[in-house]
Amino acid sequence: MTISMPQFDISTLPVMKIHDWFDGPYPARVRIALAEKGLLSRVEFISVNLWTGQHKTPDFLAINYSGTLPVLELHDGTLIAECTAITQYLDALDGNPTLTGQTPLEKGLIHMMTKRAEIEFLDAVSVYFHHATAGLGPQVELYQNPEWGFRMRDKAVRGMRYFDSLLEHRPFVAGDAFSMGDIAVLGGMIFAALVKLPVPDECTALQAWHARMQERPSLREWRAMVERGAPQTKENIHLPS
Amino acid sequence: MTISMPQFDISTLPVMKIHDWFDGPYPARVRIALAEKGLLSRVEFISVNLWTGQHKTPDFLAINYSGTLPVLELHDGTLIAECTAITQYLDALDGNPTLTGQTPLEKGLIHMMTKRAEIEFLDAVSVYFHHATAGLGPQVELYQNPEWGFRMRDKAVRGMRYFDSLLEHRPFVAGDAFSMGDIAVLGGMIFAALVKLPVPDECTALQAWHARMQERPSLREWRAMVERGAPQTKENIHLPS
Repeated sequence: MTISMPQFDISTLPVMKIHDWFDGPYPARVRIALAEKGLLSRVEFISVNLWTGQHKTPDFLAINYSGTLPVLELHDGTLIAECTAITQYLDALDGNPTLTGQTPLEKGLIHMMTKRAEIEFLDAVSVYFHHATAGLGPQVELYQNPEWGFRMRDKAVRGMRYFDSLLEHRPFVAGDAFSMGDIAVLGGMIFAALVKLPVPDECTALQAWHARMQERPSLREWRAMVERGAPQTKENIHLPS
Repeated sequence: MTISMPQFDISTLPVMKIHDWFDGPYPARVRIALAEKGLLSRVEFISVNLWTGQHKTPDFLAINYSGTLPVLELHDGTLIAECTAITQYLDALDGNPTLTGQTPLEKGLIHMMTKRAEIEFLDAVSVYFHHATAGLGPQVELYQNPEWGFRMRDKAVRGMRYFDSLLEHRPFVAGDAFSMGDIAVLGGMIFAALVKLPVPDECTALQAWHARMQERPSLREWRAMVERGAPQTKENIHLPS
């Protein structure tokens, strides 16, 4: 297979919008992907305040039926929800997929590990947060199933042990190179830290990988965005401290 | 972007194994994808009996940590789990992705709709089955949360209405062409039929799409495989009738 491709000039890319929340764990996945691809400058962030339940309003549900963040909005109004889908789109733009794989095998393994990171770790932490803790507060969490939430907490901890065992034998989640799979596990680590779900002490490979990840420029850029704090919009006046 | 590609000869492809169960809704997704790609003849199916909980045994968990079907095993022993990941792999093999999109936009939209079909429909039916019905029976369903199961049943029905509303305005789930997104919604329809969860009468666009899908050769091939019945292996002697 031969592929010839002109140089990709990101300055020709129309500005995109990302509907998200500055320190959300799922938004982090796309912000890190944007940073990895050098695309942060081509994006305008639109704040959707999770703590006031803005993502569950009819206006936002018209943008994303599932009521989740983030959502990518293209210059023509096309909407792409779901972190994996957004990352797949962004990664394909320059014809040089660095996060989702170039060969069939890389694509398969990266998509598998990304999904596994969601099911076994990130999504499980999310269910724990929304169902077995105060979550986003009583105005937003209109239904909770604590038994299910605690079960998912335990699943997430097992997930940490699983990824630890993997990372004992490979440098990155899906093999020898950084990928969307690492970003998904990072999403899990970010959410676990927010809900104060500790990584077991004996998960030394997971912790060493996590420390290495923090040195990547994309993670530094993401942290700087978080440290800049909540966007000052009218919406956010009542943001809980 | 110019892509030149030699003709792909599937007869050169080493035989792959698929670990699955003949009439499972998730296995159906990959069997339909294989049929769409003309790859059924390159696959040997290994039966994993869901009804005896074979997918939850240590032997199978070593193949797929998540304990789910199907799993693709390549000739060198490489294992790829998760329907989306397997489909992505298979679709990339011939350099002519017909199920997962060719342009960045197609890729993004197809991955979004596939994930949405899982979250809002297929996975919700699955949780209903495993938590609020007898599921695979008391030997396999060691924990059930019926309240959560019924909630997911209601979510699945809302999901049917959502896909119905989409299909009023487009011929296929992710736009103008058949894709992995259609296969994911078909997975939901297959699971809903198994658990006798009816499609609301007023979902006429969803029903019309579903009827059109049955005419595709891939669906006929899948149905023929199901009608051949459960594989006759020692494992299956105690299969419930």
